[in-house]
Amino acid sequence: MKTGLWLVAVGLLPVAPAFAALMPMPQTVVPGAGSLKIDSSFSVQARGYSDARLDRAMGRLAARVSRQTGIEIRGGKTVLWIECRAGGSQYPTLGEDESYRMDVSADGARISAATVIGALRGMETFAGWIDLGRDGFEARAIHIDDAPRFPWRGLMLDVSRHWMPIDVVLRNLDAMAAVKLNVFHWHLSDDQGFRVESRRFPRLQGLGSDGRFYTQDEVRRVIEYARDRGIRVIPEFDMPGHSTSWLVGYPELGSAPGPYQIERKWGIFQPVMDPSREQTYAFLDEFIGEMAALFPDPYFHIGGDEVDATEWNRSGAIQAWAARNGLKDAAAIQGYFNRRVAKIVVKHGKTMLGWDEAFDTTLPRDTVVQSWRGQASLADVARAGFRGVLSFGYYLDHLQPASLHYGVDPLDGAARELSLDQKARILGGEACMWSEYVDPETIDSRVWPSAAAIAERLWSQAAITDVDSMYERLESVSRMLDWVGLKHRVNYEPMLERLAGERAADPLRILADASEALGIEGRRGAREYTSLVDLNRFVDAARPESESVRRMERAARKVLAAPDGSAREAAELRAMLAAWAENDARLQPQGELAGLSKNLSVLGSIGLRILEYLQLGQTPPEPWIEQQAALLTEMERPAAEVNLAAVRPVRILLERAAQRHSSGGNK
Amino acid sequence: MKTGLWLVAVGLLPVAPAFAALMPMPQTVVPGAGSLKIDSSFSVQARGYSDARLDRAMGRLAARVSRQTGIEIRGGKTVLWIECRAGGSQYPTLGEDESYRMDVSADGARISAATVIGALRGMETFAGWIDLGRDGFEARAIHIDDAPRFPWRGLMLDVSRHWMPIDVVLRNLDAMAAVKLNVFHWHLSDDQGFRVESRRFPRLQGLGSDGRFYTQDEVRRVIEYARDRGIRVIPEFDMPGHSTSWLVGYPELGSAPGPYQIERKWGIFQPVMDPSREQTYAFLDEFIGEMAALFPDPYFHIGGDEVDATEWNRSGAIQAWAARNGLKDAAAIQGYFNRRVAKIVVKHGKTMLGWDEAFDTTLPRDTVVQSWRGQASLADVARAGFRGVLSFGYYLDHLQPASLHYGVDPLDGAARELSLDQKARILGGEACMWSEYVDPETIDSRVWPSAAAIAERLWSQAAITDVDSMYERLESVSRMLDWVGLKHRVNYEPMLERLAGERAADPLRILADASEALGIEGRRGAREYTSLVDLNRFVDAARPESESVRRMERAARKVLAAPDGSAREAAELRAMLAAWAENDARLQPQGELAGLSKNLSVLGSIGLRILEYLQLGQTPPEPWIEQQAALLTEMERPAAEVNLAAVRPVRILLERAAQRHSSGGNK
Repeated sequence: MKTGLWLVAVGLLPVAPAFAALMPMPQTVVPGAGSLKIDSSFSVQARGYSDARLDRAMGRLAARVSRQTGIEIRGGKTVLWIECRAGGSQYPTLGEDESYRMDVSADGARISAATVIGALRGMETFAGWIDLGRDGFEARAIHIDDAPRFPWRGLMLDVSRHWMPIDVVLRNLDAMAAVKLNVFHWHLSDDQGFRVESRRFPRLQGLGSDGRFYTQDEVRRVIEYARDRGIRVIPEFDMPGHSTSWLVGYPELGSAPGPYQIERKWGIFQPVMDPSREQTYAFLDEFIGEMAALFPDPYFHIGGDEVDATEWNRSGAIQAWAARNGLKDAAAIQGYFNRRVAKIVVKHGKTMLGWDEAFDTTLPRDTVVQSWRGQASLADVARAGFRGVLSFGYYLDHLQPASLHYGVDPLDGAARELSLDQKARILGGEACMWSEYVDPETIDSRVWPSAAAIAERLWSQAAITDVDSMYERLESVSRMLDWVGLKHRVNYEPMLERLAGERAADPLRILADASEALGIEGRRGAREYTSLVDLNRFVDAARPESESVRRMERAARKVLAAPDGSAREAAELRAMLAAWAENDARLQPQGELAGLSKNLSVLGSIGLRILEYLQLGQTPPEPWIEQQAALLTEMERPAAEVNLAAVRPVRILLERAAQRHSSGGNK
Repeated sequence: MKTGLWLVAVGLLPVAPAFAALMPMPQTVVPGAGSLKIDSSFSVQARGYSDARLDRAMGRLAARVSRQTGIEIRGGKTVLWIECRAGGSQYPTLGEDESYRMDVSADGARISAATVIGALRGMETFAGWIDLGRDGFEARAIHIDDAPRFPWRGLMLDVSRHWMPIDVVLRNLDAMAAVKLNVFHWHLSDDQGFRVESRRFPRLQGLGSDGRFYTQDEVRRVIEYARDRGIRVIPEFDMPGHSTSWLVGYPELGSAPGPYQIERKWGIFQPVMDPSREQTYAFLDEFIGEMAALFPDPYFHIGGDEVDATEWNRSGAIQAWAARNGLKDAAAIQGYFNRRVAKIVVKHGKTMLGWDEAFDTTLPRDTVVQSWRGQASLADVARAGFRGVLSFGYYLDHLQPASLHYGVDPLDGAARELSLDQKARILGGEACMWSEYVDPETIDSRVWPSAAAIAERLWSQAAITDVDSMYERLESVSRMLDWVGLKHRVNYEPMLERLAGERAADPLRILADASEALGIEGRRGAREYTSLVDLNRFVDAARPESESVRRMERAARKVLAAPDGSAREAAELRAMLAAWAENDARLQPQGELAGLSKNLSVLGSIGLRILEYLQLGQTPPEPWIEQQAALLTEMERPAAEVNLAAVRPVRILLERAAQRHSSGGNK
């Protein structure tokens, strides 16, 4: 899939703003001279092959360019030509040719591709490449030759723990398409809810969903919407564990007598399907048959993770059955269950996927393992002749920095030792959003823009690893995703205003901009969270990563490195630090934000003080530095379920002040 | 319509935050003790009469409370009871009983009304009354007895000059309902576009709309949507002038031979219908018949404003016809035309509305005149026994301060001299948004929140005139309108980010927050605007009134009045002034914003300097003050089609410094 000529694009062009929202970075980028003006005469037209899917995509692109630029597109002389050679398969398939070429010159632009899928990818590149030049919007001249590194680039959304209405799914599909992700993994059932309509077993959604589920028509709508964007849809029905919601309506499937209730808490629960009764498999046969017909993708995910064996161990009947069948422990029992389910999946024409725990070498050889455990686990899978996708390192619900996800490569670590054949079995990866701590209002801001960094990891060359370049482009991508229709940014201020009540939200926004929300690890112990706790507090509005703090870190480094050549950055530092310093007096918060707010103002004062010292060419006294350093360390402890990210740029300034001491004090 | 007990509510309760988004102010407000907690157990239930319209409204209220609070409403013990005695007329009518009572206590809440329309009004009051208390969201105990002062409270949207897709109309209907406006005046045709499907005369929209028109199904959808919210829909088809778009497809209607083109510029154009040919009236008879059947409201607006008589004067045939009929001038000709049209309107069961120019006393006595000329014009209408509504003073496209609109009362000025009977003929008013300088992205931010101040003028008692209270509540209303679904706030940052290109938008936002966009008067001479010019520049993102500058003015006054008791305001002033002072170095804009940005930073420095003087108890030297005052006056001149609103708070500070001089210098 690699093109012959491989140019490390990052080195070729000036860094931002030159790259606009070019993410994932294409395989080959050759800049040209001049640029194509984007004005109301812009149009997108097919040349050669065309079909309804392509037509719709071209219409969407024109509408998006119009939104992005605020220009009313009326068509005319500026044409982006789309040249496809064929339509491709009816629904996107694993390994389908996604390559394309894009040429932009001052006279026009052209995307050529073997199939519509490639053209779709190219059109997203074009949209991201549009940039604000001196004379208005433009697409600079460029030649791009592009194809993905991995064929499986997914996003998993858990719609069970918190219900996500269909519009959440649709806008996330748009965002996935924008960064060329091509697998939507739909985690449709879990202990907290069964989210799809079964006509064969209507009590699944009838009693297991609180009335919150997708009808089959809605599922079809999602599939068609995804197909239009070149995205496969793979359903997951987690079994035999994580299945409480099934058992509410069909307790006879469970290993204990029941009755069962929808789980409201988070964690791993005891309810588990009964592997010893033939009725269980008869049920699954019918159910999987129904779902196999509903979902056209040939892959079918059976979950298989985190099975609690308590009910199996407690049940005399199951234990007796296990003994009769030589199943010596829970793992053996789950292995048996998986083999039975695999047969059912195959019978209905599908290929099975499961999490690490579902894997064993007696499964059909084409089974795909999704690994949350890591590259070593994945390498074992590949060595055993099976295929796998990586999700370890891509768990978005932990709200870790995008750079952390960006640093995780499916072919890194233990996978580096694999043979080429074995490596080829590692199909790619999937970002995962488990929904304990997100709801329809906040989910976008936890998935995006981080998922774009993962998308780049899976699409672009392994050598594309520059974190600064990634973050610069990520910020552009994040703004672009506004125009794609995501709510990750527009929901921020209204949520803060809701918390501000009658008062102006500005000071609360300054505090939120300086804070970073904790993920699942930090929140689970913070209070008693259940699915009935509303996610409308400060931590829910705050973002996982603060763009403005990152900018201040950059500004601080630049000011320290070149005090004379960084007037803009110095002004930004002073303005932001002053805003922080005054903020506690403006906000005067009560309750959980009191300490956080006070700390931010202290940080502002410390930062301003250091800038003064630096400006005067002086060095603050050592005891003062030590005292401030201790304060900063104190402030790094989470409060109100957020981290005070603002510590970081102030620490950069303080460390420089300290260095001056170690290098001999005042010059 | 007034209730017996009239309590000036503003005096009764503490000012903000006590009033939440209570706008328009109800007729009678009696606060109680305690408050009703709004949590997930909240529900809205009908008691007594109920119908589908009421059910839908209750569903919307629950959904809105959920959005507003971030609380998942599951229903339970906290009930808002809706008690209606009857359904009311099928479609809202002029003079329909809109009164309601609302009682909130710690145990529950109740809205009672004669009809569903009253209940709708009460539910909007309830939604606006929800407030963030110390322990979460609540509705404080209150008794409200409410009814409108005027029965006609409208908003006119011009969808001809810039096309407004149906979703713009729908979300503006939601906003209208939120502030109890009850007439949507739909300006559907003008020189620049004919915006509704005619099946009898398909070339109207076929050639006169660039393909941008509402189908009849969409019109019906808007009417039903409005009906659900207690809003009448009145179409306007402007004639005989402002009718170029009709003539493109039907040049035989025109007074000149044609051919005609859709107008792309703004202004008054020569094309005008031919009043001398019977075919014109035959056409209008068929057309008005078709539209009269489509729009259920009994009122029908024929425009009639701004007729350019050039074509009439040039046409020998028209002049000969006029002479034969004793029509001595253009006014007489238009009078004749209007009488003929009035007969057609009446024939189709409708009552006619027209602008001032369409008025003459030979028209049917129930004709309603919409006055853009003012209360004197309206008083003449009333004295002549006709009815009228005021739009003078309510032209939102001028982007004047909300306080200016707020100060205009339909019964003020010349109307004060009218008898009670004559006064009763003044039915109310209508805010008007002409769309030369707005598009679907910006229109909300030009209509709202100002239109809410007009809504209060038309609903609440004439004595409710406190501008500070209005602005405080207006800010709450503006935030609330986010949850109603308007785009007046959420579109702001993306528009600025679009202009910022690859750079962080923060400094641009600071500049935009400090600026106020000019309206039609200021823009029409600034460059050559046509319907083909995109509205995506700084002026289009900037708001008509700056909330943050208003807050700074308040803060400046408070700090000057009570330096010791205003730590919060002092911090806000310092933080904002510092941000301004640093902003030009951060933004470094080129082109039209360069001077504006520099001025803002100068303002920041001046403001900080004055604060320093004040803090030290010193007075700046007189020459310095004079110099700064001159600078400020200089900065008041518009640039880049905006006013630098930031001058105002700095002027407040400077004037205090100057007063110290005139009162004898340093104390």
